[in-house]
Amino acid sequence: MIVTIKKEYDGKQMENLLEWIKTLGLSAHVSNGDNCTIVGLIGDTSKVDIDLLRSLDMVESVTRIQEPFKNANRKFHPQDTIVDVKGHKIGGGHFTVMAGPCSVETYEQVLSIAKDVKKSGAGLLRGGAFKPRTSPYAFQGLGEKGIEILKAVSDEVGLPFVTELMSEKYLDLFVEKVDVIQIGARNMQNFDLLKAVGKTDKPILLKRGLSSTMEEWLMSAEYVMSEGNDKV
Amino acid sequence: MIVTIKKEYDGKQMENLLEWIKTLGLSAHVSNGDNCTIVGLIGDTSKVDIDLLRSLDMVESVTRIQEPFKNANRKFHPQDTIVDVKGHKIGGGHFTVMAGPCSVETYEQVLSIAKDVKKSGAGLLRGGAFKPRTSPYAFQGLGEKGIEILKAVSDEVGLPFVTELMSEKYLDLFVEKVDVIQIGARNMQNFDLLKAVGKTDKPILLKRGLSSTMEEWLMSAEYVMSEGNDKV
Amino acid sequence: MIVTIKKEYDGKQMENLLEWIKTLGLSAHVSNGDNCTIVGLIGDTSKVDIDLLRSLDMVESVTRIQEPFKNANRKFHPQDTIVDVKGHKIGGGHFTVMAGPCSVETYEQVLSIAKDVKKSGAGLLRGGAFKPRTSPYAFQGLGEKGIEILKAVSDEVGLPFVTELMSEKYLDLFVEKVDVIQIGARNMQNFDLLKAVGKTDKPILLKRGLSSTMEEWLMSAEYVMSEGNDKV
Amino acid sequence: MIVTIKKEYDGKQMENLLEWIKTLGLSAHVSNGDNCTIVGLIGDTSKVDIDLLRSLDMVESVTRIQEPFKNANRKFHPQDTIVDVKGHKIGGGHFTVMAGPCSVETYEQVLSIAKDVKKSGAGLLRGGAFKPRTSPYAFQGLGEKGIEILKAVSDEVGLPFVTELMSEKYLDLFVEKVDVIQIGARNMQNFDLLKAVGKTDKPILLKRGLSSTMEEWLMSAEYVMSEGNDKV
Repeated sequence: MIVTIKKEYDGKQMENLLEWIKTLGLSAHVSNGDNCTIVGLIGDTSKVDIDLLRSLDMVESVTRIQEPFKNANRKFHPQDTIVDVKGHKIGGGHFTVMAGPCSVETYEQVLSIAKDVKKSGAGLLRGGAFKPRTSPYAFQGLGEKGIEILKAVSDEVGLPFVTELMSEKYLDLFVEKVDVIQIGARNMQNFDLLKAVGKTDKPILLKRGLSSTMEEWLMSAEYVMSEGNDKV
Repeated sequence: MIVTIKKEYDGKQMENLLEWIKTLGLSAHVSNGDNCTIVGLIGDTSKVDIDLLRSLDMVESVTRIQEPFKNANRKFHPQDTIVDVKGHKIGGGHFTVMAGPCSVETYEQVLSIAKDVKKSGAGLLRGGAFKPRTSPYAFQGLGEKGIEILKAVSDEVGLPFVTELMSEKYLDLFVEKVDVIQIGARNMQNFDLLKAVGKTDKPILLKRGLSSTMEEWLMSAEYVMSEGNDKV
Repeated sequence: MIVTIKKEYDGKQMENLLEWIKTLGLSAHVSNGDNCTIVGLIGDTSKVDIDLLRSLDMVESVTRIQEPFKNANRKFHPQDTIVDVKGHKIGGGHFTVMAGPCSVETYEQVLSIAKDVKKSGAGLLRGGAFKPRTSPYAFQGLGEKGIEILKAVSDEVGLPFVTELMSEKYLDLFVEKVDVIQIGARNMQNFDLLKAVGKTDKPILLKRGLSSTMEEWLMSAEYVMSEGNDKV
Repeated sequence: MIVTIKKEYDGKQMENLLEWIKTLGLSAHVSNGDNCTIVGLIGDTSKVDIDLLRSLDMVESVTRIQEPFKNANRKFHPQDTIVDVKGHKIGGGHFTVMAGPCSVETYEQVLSIAKDVKKSGAGLLRGGAFKPRTSPYAFQGLGEKGIEILKAVSDEVGLPFVTELMSEKYLDLFVEKVDVIQIGARNMQNFDLLKAVGKTDKPILLKRGLSSTMEEWLMSAEYVMSEGNDKV
């Protein structure tokens, strides 16, 4: 992490900054250039509060060199993550197709589609029971009843299934019945929901939010993983 | 609402479409052009499922002419919305400043700031007790304790306050203690949370989500309002 | 094209509007709803100035139903566009790879790459002689000398080539020596350049500008095509 | 500038890199961490080709600490830029309004507007003679005749004027007659045009391109300034 210091700064403040950096278990390297002074922070900077640093009077800007996420970082576990869903492996070169209807409507509808999905070689069934719709007047999904239908079809056809969780309220139901929990694009930064699913041991399918950066996405994965669930 | 039909279409399908439109309480006007046939839907189209229409084989595209929101629509209540927060009026030409610290840290900190906020003429105090932070390692706010501090300072100084709700889990606490509930940018499309606050009678401060369109924002307001709460 | 009229409007103005629509060779269909009056324009609306319509006092909004481009529109030539570059066909199911170095540096460099490109089965050579670089201090390309190198290698190896034109100033040179003219992302709305290449009979490779909509991109193709060059 | 080196790298390549950095007149500071090695480049890095650095096998990423622009950089001329247009000062706390019609249509139209503009206290007249329009079928402006009209009105009313240049082709005309040259949003990265106006001594009004970053905008100003024209 590189902290650029303003041209005119107070020596006492600099001492305090360097002292504080030391208390974080990091070492600092100061470099005096013509136009600015630069402080390099060396060590594990993933837990440094970058906003706090930026808010200091003497600081012009702060630039991360290393990523602010650790559990979701390849550097700390170079091997591929492989998630096992009832025998279907995801990741590590395994290619899994998850298919199914946008919305769960009826048992017959899902059953008929699930049979085709299985016949076509897909590894998981997917279907929406709780539907995030832009309009409150659009069909909102069957809710709990949709989960029952998915579970029944899943058992009958022998395909694990993934479906979206929109509220912590239904977490117990999902943990009991659902094989993979989807967090949708609109909830990618619903941090309470991320923490909640991070406390389960269910595989999490985390969709990228609209206009999110890759880093924000990985930070959302980090939210889940920092609670103990690394099946993201 | 304008439905553009593909060049080659089935007469029977068209009959079904027109029949279905009638069952929605709308009337249809068909216009045959050289390059396409157009069906105009006349009446209150705010509850028509546009995705369903678009998914029909014979339909090339669907264009809304009227807005898909009604409660949040000026056309249906041309007068300004005025929300009264313990005597402070918001909207309708009233100009209210809400000010306070990013994060609630201590009682003394908030009290000191609140006194300045009041002296400076602001109408509401604001402060974050639950903090939506991109990183799970950044300070997440004091939570419930932060709400207690805000409430105590609010009572002492005589300023109503606004603070962000991130999870339905704390809704009762907010309804009991908080004057204005903020829904933050990242939760603008957390529809379950929108519905939940729509069932309260608390004023809602709804922030616009990153990269959201105006229409998506108004649709989120519509979610709150469609549950009965029009103080958005 | 649908013109939505404001609730309160002047009858005389409406007459003038309908008169004006007629002079454009279009017919108008007026529909009076509860909340607004709608005028549908029927006929070839691609040349209607939508901004002018929008600027009228009585008009609330204007919505296009048909696309504002004609030459670039599938509806007016449903068959695929096939461009022939010295025997290599592009489009209509033909799959052509164009490959080569980012920047032309030396004859030897381009020759060596071009031989590999040909051996690998690509149909065209590409390489930058004029380079659009964000920084004025970055290498700006060899310019005219780069074109000479590309032409010489192209003749020797027997591969037609594509390269980017950044300024009308070099149009004659490009028409004489270059097989396919590339218009880069940053110049997608450099309308004078689009018109200039539209007057040649060279195939044009038009890149999509950053954050451009599909419609803006097609309108840029329309600029080229409206000058007579349909090899876009 | 911070160059992050991959975990496994070749000692010989590192020597070459450090040698090359020296030839650029910069000094290098190498720091070996647990997860990566970092090379800090100290000195004027504004002319370092960051893409070239990034393309090296051993380099994981390159991060700029200092801005890649120099002429457009406050750090190198902390005082405000003040541009004098026939006595009207722009910048440095001077507040200048430029007003006028979107399109120049007739002498009478512009004259009438210019008189109002002057009466209202604006310092410059603006009006479009060459119009960048998304559609080739929309009115493209009066072109050279529009410039004549603007010049005549400007002289008569005693207001300098600004108008948009879309092609180098008309540069001589603009230098002779126009007081301030506008580069529009769509041409913000038309680098040949930027260089061309950089060779004049005319004040340049540079609009920000759609979705451009601040840095890209400043780099476009740098294009103009690097040719000698600092009135941007």
